[in-house]
Formats: sequence, C-alpha cells, structure tokens
Amino acid sequence: MFSVKTLNPDMNTVNPVLVHVTRGDLVENRHRDAVVVCDPSGRQVHAQGDVTAPVYPRSAIKALQALPLLETGAADHYQLSEAEIALACSSHNAEPAHTDLITAWLSRLGLDQDALECGPHAPLHEPTARALLLAGREPGKIHNNCSGKHTGMLTAACCLGEDPGGYIERDHPVQQRWFDALGDMGDVDMRRLPWSYDGCGIPVIAMPLAAIATAFARFAAPDGLGAARINAIERISSAIAANPFMVAGSGRLCTELMQVTGRRVLVKTGADGVFTATAPDRGLGLALKIDDGNREASEIALLATLRELEILRDDDLEALATRTRLPILNTRGIRVGYRQSADF
Amino acid sequence: MFSVKTLNPDMNTVNPVLVHVTRGDLVENRHRDAVVVCDPSGRQVHAQGDVTAPVYPRSAIKALQALPLLETGAADHYQLSEAEIALACSSHNAEPAHTDLITAWLSRLGLDQDALECGPHAPLHEPTARALLLAGREPGKIHNNCSGKHTGMLTAACCLGEDPGGYIERDHPVQQRWFDALGDMGDVDMRRLPWSYDGCGIPVIAMPLAAIATAFARFAAPDGLGAARINAIERISSAIAANPFMVAGSGRLCTELMQVTGRRVLVKTGADGVFTATAPDRGLGLALKIDDGNREASEIALLATLRELEILRDDDLEALATRTRLPILNTRGIRVGYRQSADF
Repeated sequence: MFSVKTLNPDMNTVNPVLVHVTRGDLVENRHRDAVVVCDPSGRQVHAQGDVTAPVYPRSAIKALQALPLLETGAADHYQLSEAEIALACSSHNAEPAHTDLITAWLSRLGLDQDALECGPHAPLHEPTARALLLAGREPGKIHNNCSGKHTGMLTAACCLGEDPGGYIERDHPVQQRWFDALGDMGDVDMRRLPWSYDGCGIPVIAMPLAAIATAFARFAAPDGLGAARINAIERISSAIAANPFMVAGSGRLCTELMQVTGRRVLVKTGADGVFTATAPDRGLGLALKIDDGNREASEIALLATLRELEILRDDDLEALATRTRLPILNTRGIRVGYRQSADF
Repeated sequence: MFSVKTLNPDMNTVNPVLVHVTRGDLVENRHRDAVVVCDPSGRQVHAQGDVTAPVYPRSAIKALQALPLLETGAADHYQLSEAEIALACSSHNAEPAHTDLITAWLSRLGLDQDALECGPHAPLHEPTARALLLAGREPGKIHNNCSGKHTGMLTAACCLGEDPGGYIERDHPVQQRWFDALGDMGDVDMRRLPWSYDGCGIPVIAMPLAAIATAFARFAAPDGLGAARINAIERISSAIAANPFMVAGSGRLCTELMQVTGRRVLVKTGADGVFTATAPDRGLGLALKIDDGNREASEIALLATLRELEILRDDDLEALATRTRLPILNTRGIRVGYRQSADF
C-alpha cells in the first residue's frame, strides 16, 4: 500500500517545469507539475516530480466513482442509457443537451433538481451562461458541472432504498461505496488518507498520484479483477467513448480529444490542474497535477506526456494541433506568445 | 547597470513557495515567486528568489509610464484633474465613474474612444460587465482597463503636436519618452532589454525585478533627481493617494489598500502575477512576480511582504484582514480552505 509521506511536501520536493507561457522571446509564466504513468501492477513507466505526495484528484476520478452505479445494478434497474452513464462521469458544460438529459433522468427517479445537494454555479459553457443571464434566470444546481455525478449517486441510493437526503455525507453508503471501489483500484486505504470537501460538496480524498495512475491502469486493463468490476469498467469505458460530448461539451479538451481517439485514450480533467488518462490499448493509466492549480497548463502537460509516451499517435496530434501549442492573443488580437510544453 | 543574465532562467533558479492554497489540512496549490525590496541606491533590503531575471512588469509600472505626461507639460496644458492623473496610472474596472471621466477627458482633446488603440475587453468589474451585456452592448476600447493610460499618452501627443495615430508603436515619441523615464529611474538601458507587446498593444519591456524595485524606491524618495522629475513624482503620488478608486475600483486590492494607507503605501497590480509598491515614508520600492502568473497569489505575496517589512502597520493589516487570508468556498458556500502566505 502507498503511505502518505508528508502532508505538505512542497518545501522539500521541487517538481519540474513542464509548461511555459511565452511573450515575445521570453518565458513569462511557468508551471511546475508532477506526472506519472503506471501499469496495472503499479510499476511507474514514466514519472516526473513527486508522485507520492497526496493530491486531491477532484473530478478526474469520476469514471472510478461511477463504478458502484454499475456494480450495484442501479444503472440496469433504471435502464440508464450510455449517454446517462457518460454524464455520471462528466464535468459537463451545462449546455441544454446536458441539463435536459439530467432533468429527464432525475424525473425517472421521481426527483427534480431540488434533490441535488451540489451547489449552483454558472454554466461552464460561456454562451449558455450568457443566455441564462439574458433570460433573467439564476444558475441552478442542475448547472453545476457535477450534476451528472450527483444524479448517478442518487440513482444508486434510490435503487437500494437508501435515504437520498444527505447522500453527499462522508458516512452515507453512496460515498462509502466509491471509497471502497477506488481504494481497491488504487491499492490505498481510503479511510486513512487526508480528506476534505470537493467543490460540489462530496468528500474529496487526497491520494498519491501514483495510486491514481495505478487505478486508471487497472481501469485500462482490468483482466485480473472480478467479473462484476470488469463488466462495469467495460460499460463505463464504452459509454464515455461513445459520448465524448456528454463528458464535457463544446470547446472542451476532454470532448475534442476523445472525439479524435475514441476509446483508445480516455481522459478526464479535475479542478485545480489535475488530469487523468487511461489507455486501454497500452494498459496504462496517467495522473498529473499542476503545482499551482492552473487548468490550461494541465491540458498542455497532459498532451505533452501522452505524446512523449506515444499514447497519442501522430495523426491524433495533428488533429489536436491547436491544443498542443496555444497562441496567446492580446486585446488587439495580436499573437504575443504561446502556452506550450517546456520541451517545445 | 543591470544586465540580463539569461532569457529563460527557470530551469536553473527555483523561486521559493510564498503562497499556499489549502483544502482541509493539505496544501492543494502552491505558488512560487520572486520578490525584492530596494532602496533608492539599488541596495536590496529584502530579496527572495531570482530578482535579476527579466520580468515583464506589465501594468505595474503605470505610475512611472505617466511621468512624461507631467514632465512634458501636457497635464498642465489640458488642466488635468488629480482624478485624471490617477486614471492615467490605472488598471481600472471600467465602472461608469471611470469611463465617464475618460470619455469627457478624450473630448477635451477633441477625440473620442475611436482614437484609443488598445483593444476592447469586457469591464473587469463583473456587475458593470453584466449590465453592458443586459443592455445589449459590446465592450468598447474605453472599457479596456488601460484606457486611462492610453488617454494619458494621447494627451501628451496632442499637446506636443505629434500624430496621435500609431501612438502605441515602439518608435512613437509617446513610447520613447517613458522608455527614457523608466530606464533612468531603474538604471537600465531600455533599448537593450527583451521586449514584446502588452495586453493593450503598447510595448512591454522585460526588466530585472530589482531594477523595477529600484525605480519605485526612487519614486518613493526622489531627493536626488531633477526638479521636474521630483515635481512629476509629487503630483502623481498625490493624485493616486487622493483617488484610490480611480486607480482600480470596487472590490480591488489596490483601491482598498490605498484607502487604508493613503499616500504612506502606494501599490499597483500588473497582469500575470506582478505587483509593485512604493513606500515614501520608508524610501523603499517593491517588485514581485508570481512564477505561474496567478493574480490572487500576487495579492497574498504583496501583503505578506509588506507585513514582513513592517511597511504595513498592525492597524493597516487589521483593516485588510479579509485580504491577507482568503477563505476558499465551495459551491455550497462551505469554507474548504484558504489562500494564504506560506508562512501563515
């Protein structure tokens, strides 16, 4: 099992600079990060920086948090579509295609958005946020990027006759189930790790990056796991690969990358500069965290690492060319620099 | 004179972590920075990190860029008010109090916002941006946070009979004048330093942080300088101290801090994690840059350094208590952590 080395390792370990933001000929901003790629045995096939320090994985583990939705039989009981399973694993944009589907799903549970215990925030999708504002409407809990995950959690609670009220609490069976699933997948004792509250209100448990990457490697190559787990992973992977829009939305890297790669590479962003990836073809899992929490930098670091390990192929990279080196424009529309890999 | 050591020093020098963002008991995000406080001789009375590497000071040097506005006689020619001089040194919120004054000032020059060569962007002040959207109006160049600086530059061009068209170009006298003033104040040859374009379109010249801090120390204690320079500094300092709202606006640290300190401590933010300060009482100047460009972290680092050097007094810090340790709330309104000095 992984042990938590130290709570605040930053003064001892210095992670490398993997992302640069240039202006003219200079590097103006630099982002340090730690990244690790593991195989299902936990062997690190690639590692940069401190990959043993505990990191909050935030939303980057939603596919693992969704395992109990399948394994309890709740997804079948409510005959969830692949799009709904993908939404359970999403940090969605709250575009109408997302919120309409979640609203209809909640009503099949006999619930509405009042049952959601995430807080409200403006849709991540700027035009949708603007349309809401122009319509004089306040953002609701349905617009929280985690509302699909929460609806998935409510689905399991309803199916098993558990009180849906308080489903976000640490000791509610809904939360305990994913602690067990993730602990199992990542070889960690989830109840002994540091924890706090996530942006949406559920517990968030800090894990070594290497444990997160190992969990996703097993998600990529689940051969040694039990039949129910293998089946759940199979169905979640298929659902995500078939519905990349449902996992994120317009203009989002997760969606665009998986539209290019299909099931060959599944990726998921998490708040504060986290990213995970799973490469079923290669039997590998990846986890990374930008030290300073910058989201844009996490996208550059993800693509650079997937390129370095040839998990992304040349034709993938060509299709994602505007993503690997992002022009920085000033207010006059003049390109002043790039956000890019430090190795560029 | 300072020399530019290397263009991309990040792989050699590791700046210290001065700002933490916590979640529960863990540090979730960490921000490295370099900070230096100098006296007018250039002596470093406080330094952390690499303070010799070139840094784009962005908007943090606007008070120095405004020196020619006074020294050319343009401010007197157009009888600029103290509020207008403060606007020339501002990164304003584009609240009506800012844009109304700039519009009236431009019309005294016989110009309107079409003469501004900055690009448009939505007002920094969220409610003003929302009101503009709800009114069905697009942001204009007047809403650019730099439009006061640009109007100041146009004022000098108009006064001296220079072509106002193209005033943002590197070889226009308007730009050349502030290169000279800043080079003089910071003991650097501005024409030999790396440069690019700023967010608003004017040139931005990378300088060692120590040179920027020295320039502000001389702004704080201009005794040895010429009479015209001393007079310009005196009037700019008075204008800023008397109009902290004009320099930034509602909810902004620059405004709130100077409302507390008056002329005793003048501060100015710059894009991508830069901050400068000048302490006339102490004859000191400060410059800092967050490695990753994070604005919120630059505010925490500024306050921590001003506290450490006792440039901010206990009663100042009490009045700014909500600024020195910022609660992080999740979407449910639950406090999950703090953005705070790493020494907290």
